[in-house]
Amino acid sequence: MTDTDAEELAERVRDGDLRLYELEEHADADTAAAARRLLVEDHSGADLSTSGDYGFPAEAADANIENMLGAIQIPLGVVGPVAIDGGAISGEHYLPMATTEGALLASVNRGCAALNTAGGAGARVLKNRMTRAPAFRVADVAEAEALSSWVRDNTEALREAAESTTSHGELKEATPYVVGNTVFVRFAYDTKDAMGMNMATIATEEACDVIESETSASLVALSGNLCTDKKPAAINAVEGRGRTVAADVTIPRETVRETLKTTPEAVAEVNTRKNLVGSAKAGSLGFNAHVANSVAAMFLATGQDAAQVVEGANAITTAEVDGDGDLYVSVTIASLEVGTVGGGTKLPTQSEALDVLGIAGGGDPAGSNADALAEAVAVAALAGELSLLSALASRNLSSAHASLGR
Amino acid sequence: MTDTDAEELAERVRDGDLRLYELEEHADADTAAAARRLLVEDHSGADLSTSGDYGFPAEAADANIENMLGAIQIPLGVVGPVAIDGGAISGEHYLPMATTEGALLASVNRGCAALNTAGGAGARVLKNRMTRAPAFRVADVAEAEALSSWVRDNTEALREAAESTTSHGELKEATPYVVGNTVFVRFAYDTKDAMGMNMATIATEEACDVIESETSASLVALSGNLCTDKKPAAINAVEGRGRTVAADVTIPRETVRETLKTTPEAVAEVNTRKNLVGSAKAGSLGFNAHVANSVAAMFLATGQDAAQVVEGANAITTAEVDGDGDLYVSVTIASLEVGTVGGGTKLPTQSEALDVLGIAGGGDPAGSNADALAEAVAVAALAGELSLLSALASRNLSSAHASLGR
Amino acid sequence: MTDTDAEELAERVRDGDLRLYELEEHADADTAAAARRLLVEDHSGADLSTSGDYGFPAEAADANIENMLGAIQIPLGVVGPVAIDGGAISGEHYLPMATTEGALLASVNRGCAALNTAGGAGARVLKNRMTRAPAFRVADVAEAEALSSWVRDNTEALREAAESTTSHGELKEATPYVVGNTVFVRFAYDTKDAMGMNMATIATEEACDVIESETSASLVALSGNLCTDKKPAAINAVEGRGRTVAADVTIPRETVRETLKTTPEAVAEVNTRKNLVGSAKAGSLGFNAHVANSVAAMFLATGQDAAQVVEGANAITTAEVDGDGDLYVSVTIASLEVGTVGGGTKLPTQSEALDVLGIAGGGDPAGSNADALAEAVAVAALAGELSLLSALASRNLSSAHASLGR
Amino acid sequence: MTDTDAEELAERVRDGDLRLYELEEHADADTAAAARRLLVEDHSGADLSTSGDYGFPAEAADANIENMLGAIQIPLGVVGPVAIDGGAISGEHYLPMATTEGALLASVNRGCAALNTAGGAGARVLKNRMTRAPAFRVADVAEAEALSSWVRDNTEALREAAESTTSHGELKEATPYVVGNTVFVRFAYDTKDAMGMNMATIATEEACDVIESETSASLVALSGNLCTDKKPAAINAVEGRGRTVAADVTIPRETVRETLKTTPEAVAEVNTRKNLVGSAKAGSLGFNAHVANSVAAMFLATGQDAAQVVEGANAITTAEVDGDGDLYVSVTIASLEVGTVGGGTKLPTQSEALDVLGIAGGGDPAGSNADALAEAVAVAALAGELSLLSALASRNLSSAHASLGR
Repeated sequence: MTDTDAEELAERVRDGDLRLYELEEHADADTAAAARRLLVEDHSGADLSTSGDYGFPAEAADANIENMLGAIQIPLGVVGPVAIDGGAISGEHYLPMATTEGALLASVNRGCAALNTAGGAGARVLKNRMTRAPAFRVADVAEAEALSSWVRDNTEALREAAESTTSHGELKEATPYVVGNTVFVRFAYDTKDAMGMNMATIATEEACDVIESETSASLVALSGNLCTDKKPAAINAVEGRGRTVAADVTIPRETVRETLKTTPEAVAEVNTRKNLVGSAKAGSLGFNAHVANSVAAMFLATGQDAAQVVEGANAITTAEVDGDGDLYVSVTIASLEVGTVGGGTKLPTQSEALDVLGIAGGGDPAGSNADALAEAVAVAALAGELSLLSALASRNLSSAHASLGR
Repeated sequence: MTDTDAEELAERVRDGDLRLYELEEHADADTAAAARRLLVEDHSGADLSTSGDYGFPAEAADANIENMLGAIQIPLGVVGPVAIDGGAISGEHYLPMATTEGALLASVNRGCAALNTAGGAGARVLKNRMTRAPAFRVADVAEAEALSSWVRDNTEALREAAESTTSHGELKEATPYVVGNTVFVRFAYDTKDAMGMNMATIATEEACDVIESETSASLVALSGNLCTDKKPAAINAVEGRGRTVAADVTIPRETVRETLKTTPEAVAEVNTRKNLVGSAKAGSLGFNAHVANSVAAMFLATGQDAAQVVEGANAITTAEVDGDGDLYVSVTIASLEVGTVGGGTKLPTQSEALDVLGIAGGGDPAGSNADALAEAVAVAALAGELSLLSALASRNLSSAHASLGR
Repeated sequence: MTDTDAEELAERVRDGDLRLYELEEHADADTAAAARRLLVEDHSGADLSTSGDYGFPAEAADANIENMLGAIQIPLGVVGPVAIDGGAISGEHYLPMATTEGALLASVNRGCAALNTAGGAGARVLKNRMTRAPAFRVADVAEAEALSSWVRDNTEALREAAESTTSHGELKEATPYVVGNTVFVRFAYDTKDAMGMNMATIATEEACDVIESETSASLVALSGNLCTDKKPAAINAVEGRGRTVAADVTIPRETVRETLKTTPEAVAEVNTRKNLVGSAKAGSLGFNAHVANSVAAMFLATGQDAAQVVEGANAITTAEVDGDGDLYVSVTIASLEVGTVGGGTKLPTQSEALDVLGIAGGGDPAGSNADALAEAVAVAALAGELSLLSALASRNLSSAHASLGR
Repeated sequence: MTDTDAEELAERVRDGDLRLYELEEHADADTAAAARRLLVEDHSGADLSTSGDYGFPAEAADANIENMLGAIQIPLGVVGPVAIDGGAISGEHYLPMATTEGALLASVNRGCAALNTAGGAGARVLKNRMTRAPAFRVADVAEAEALSSWVRDNTEALREAAESTTSHGELKEATPYVVGNTVFVRFAYDTKDAMGMNMATIATEEACDVIESETSASLVALSGNLCTDKKPAAINAVEGRGRTVAADVTIPRETVRETLKTTPEAVAEVNTRKNLVGSAKAGSLGFNAHVANSVAAMFLATGQDAAQVVEGANAITTAEVDGDGDLYVSVTIASLEVGTVGGGTKLPTQSEALDVLGIAGGGDPAGSNADALAEAVAVAALAGELSLLSALASRNLSSAHASLGR
């Protein structure tokens, strides 16, 4: 491209000859982006030169954005390496995290050091279901009951339709929920290494056609919000969505004292009063300190959907003193939606971050890379919880000491 | 820097001579980042060249990240310009959005077109309170009652302490909540153009000192999870956190038919069955279609904290047919935590995105830029809701037509 | 008994010779109750003569209470008869309700009249599962994952154990949920005409023995609160507990105007703004106007567990104007725990109330009487919602008229 | 009355000459009830003789029920006496409880014994606010913002209007909440010894007139569900409704071992895994074992509104081992709606139960009797929690012993 090309293109938009989103039909993607920068700079007075200085051909992002004008840059760092004993990932790994919030990586890194001292973290994917729940309108509650029964009796036909649209995805359950004359059917899939929203949506659409043609129900919305995508919802916190994953560690009493400068009892107390009782009083679905920080930073680094940090915050942290006086800490994330194929995972920097974990692209067996990513995120979250709880407990202790002294 | 410098630095880490986070003490920030890339590449086999090709001096990010090794790039685009009639922002504005999720900007852009046809969107910040809620341990419920009374009677002393730490922030309320022998005090601040977590934390710490010195309470944790930061929680959905902001529009019946290819009745039905009834059945705190998508994309573009997308999803969308047969749609976000100073707002690309909105840095009066950002996000969310609801309704209609035909 | 017997017994308690709960070992139940009245009157100065004037032999209540001293009396009335077209109950029925809250029966009765004008209410039981969810402690998340798998693989063995304890109950599902090193298993039963908590508890206890003997898990609590009994909980609102039941009606536009003095549009608006949007903003699990009133009154009348009114409030009311301009209203109660055998159902007055519905004792087929009771309660709730929503809408209308007039 | 009178009255209903609810206009209340029994017996085949054998003149219940035909009888017992050190009630008290659920009083009574051994329970009312939250429709979010400001600026005018309707009630706050073009205003009152729903409703109605006449807002519903009455809702769990009340106790380690047959550690573990972690995973607003049982039984005994057991279940139980190795247990009920005047409190048996507590009628100072009732209920709940948690812990221990032995 040349600057002239971009300027000409911008001029045609100003003239009403083209619309902002049509530029790629008249020029290559980079020129189109340049033209948009000109238009937006013109309109707003902003200087978009850094945003325009992106490190990949704009065309490479055409499945990721429309009306592109450049790229934002978010600082990327690593914590670790941290030892993981997971179901899908093991050994020592650096964990890539992108954030603009100072102190986060330092905190998680301290937590990783404590995990390593204790021999590393355990991690397990406990469940794996991407969901899509269309809403149907029926005549009345009698028909709603009949449709529910029909769905339970015809799961096989629904599976056949749904799976006809995908080479990888498997329909695992189709569960009806009724509210008056609306029937929601929650379709739950194993989408392997893909986060799977698109796969689930397309497959569900096909299954909806079967329901509409075989019953008197009318589809109102392909998503009826019982999925639940990108909203805080108890159904996800209870039943899970994407991966349900947990990580844990037992830290010897001595290590707690020396590395974390506190005691198992103090950490357990902070966790109970803050993460359990405080969250209870707040009417929360997230009983943790700052799991979303680790989830967000690893999501950004690895090309996940940033809006799904919402569901990633549905996490419960526990901390207890075990029979030996050691500190057991766990983090369980109910609905972590991750993939190593699709979405933003192919973008250059995001793909590099997945390479740091050794899990870019499809896994072998299928699904194992996404499982590994889920476990890695859970370990990062565990490290973050451990670090913050210890810091609070340590301060609590010194405050206690101070108050004893006065 | 030279490659040699970085290689030497990396070697010292490999030798156990330096730790990964100490590199900035021994080299400039860019060399330190390069050394980290070498180490991580070495350990993982990944190639980090694109991540290493970032467009700002690493030093510029030193308040945003530790253990930096580069930057990720996320595609940036714009929607609009869209006409806004807000309390803090008015006129026609491009809205910058960064995302890796294809179709999002196209969808929001369609919504913006519909908003413009209707004369633009209204928007108002309804409340403005950043909160921090420490947890205190007391002896028993009698003492808890006494501490609650003390807090109510000594708000002035707490304000004085809290405000001594900040030139801008104002303590607005300090509300006690009791669970057995734990007392939470929710401090609520006006933090002006800053998102304000740091300001609130520092101010609250000072107020806690007063409580500890004047009463028998012991601080257990500076955050007791009634704040609530980065967790889905009803207290935020009910009482708000950061900005409570709403945007709305009335779209003429004719426009709904021609531009959105559906009817006001169909949109209202989809909204009721999906966003209200479906969310109700899901046990949700988010009664909307995909507000988090707009929140996340604008947060990434403008340097907000990605983990706070969690609270940004606490939104309710309403849609109704008004007395004239036109379509009224609104989006109300209870807890949108935004700032135009601090956090990631100074990073080059993020700062450019704020310039697109004309609101980088502190506003005049103080707080007005963050208010404007909140209203812009609400308008983007409204456009996104309108677009998706219309698409579902339109499809619903055609499906209804098809079924009438058979 | 004689007064002397009771006085002697009371004296022995005063002397420390007997404890309050041991009296039935030394006298018949009525004398024991009389003695307790003397003691409590003595201690408090209260006159308990009306409480002591109960209409059944105290012995008849020995499975219902300990430390009995008499009975309270709660006014009992009826609404209806109302026409029901249910899955388990049909025809015209009086609905018995006991309450101390004036205006309730009048309101529900008005609703019944409207239902009858529209040809009666539809009703269906949609799901039937009584649950008990013990909590187990395991070593760590790896063991938690293993236990979850074991439960999924050994449902048959668990069923055998559970069902060995009951002649009627059937184990339908056993679903594991993991939080760190705690594993909850939600056992779900069809308990036929019994509300079923006792049956489910005993059966689950037996299944727990199998788990403890076959795995390394340790039972921490036979109820781990994922049941969830007598607490407001999303898991019940989403997945149901006891009966999930719905009732609905379509009321002709003309009837709405003449009988209810309002319009379908006005009722739908009140329902949306109050029951849907208002409840959403309140962070509610109950999207209705006053379903708990009907549930409580029918529970008291028919000998149900008053504490389970809690779960009975997990209800969603919908109201919409259908294609013909008529008013469709539905009530769906997610977790209504009812039985026609056991609990308080055999007490004389409660048994009479069940007779009014024609469903005392076990049904044929088993479970049909409890289904019928659930549908009757749902119809009462529907009548109550219809009446209150109409009253609000009517007032709203007249207020609108008044305001037009000024 | 004579049987003939009742038969004649019944006949007139059968003839369509009278409606079921009009009988009191043509006969005394007892005859009307008898006539209804005849009609219902006729229609259903039930025998209503026990229901018809009630111990008070039917007329005495005319403010409590319509369409009365008799009364149900629920067994009434007592637990205690238990020592209470409360803010409004002190000394040793029997607690009256009415229930049909066997084992409940035995369990609570065991808890009371443990409380007494520890010197009794502490108790405090922490907050006292009965609420009513009407919903208003405004034009758009700009007007919503304006109305919110108006409400904040005109609290004095609203108070004057509200308080003009009541001799006792005091308006404490009027807080606006906005969702799009709906504005909810939560009016919060001190209603002294009355539970206060009626008082709050009437007062709020008057305040609504002011809002409607002074602003452009239109009242949609006098209750907009942000109150929240008789529905599970986070706003009540967070902010409280009626009385927020807590009770607690510290039980010496020795007593735990000897009386409760367990250890402080075991009780704390059960509480954490079940009441905190289990409830968290269940998406609950009630973090307790069975508080609703005590609430329901005392509500029935003392003439409270049984449907408000719903809000009474919003309780958090904590259990911890303190620095001396003793067991601290607390119960905090966020929204306990109680009164000692109005409602069912004047009915003969209910009034007797209040006399047992020494708190029938209005207190001195006003409000102190309802406070005392709230504290008594909290102590009963505490006793129930302590008993059940100990039983679970004890069994847990023996199970642990058994498993060590095999």
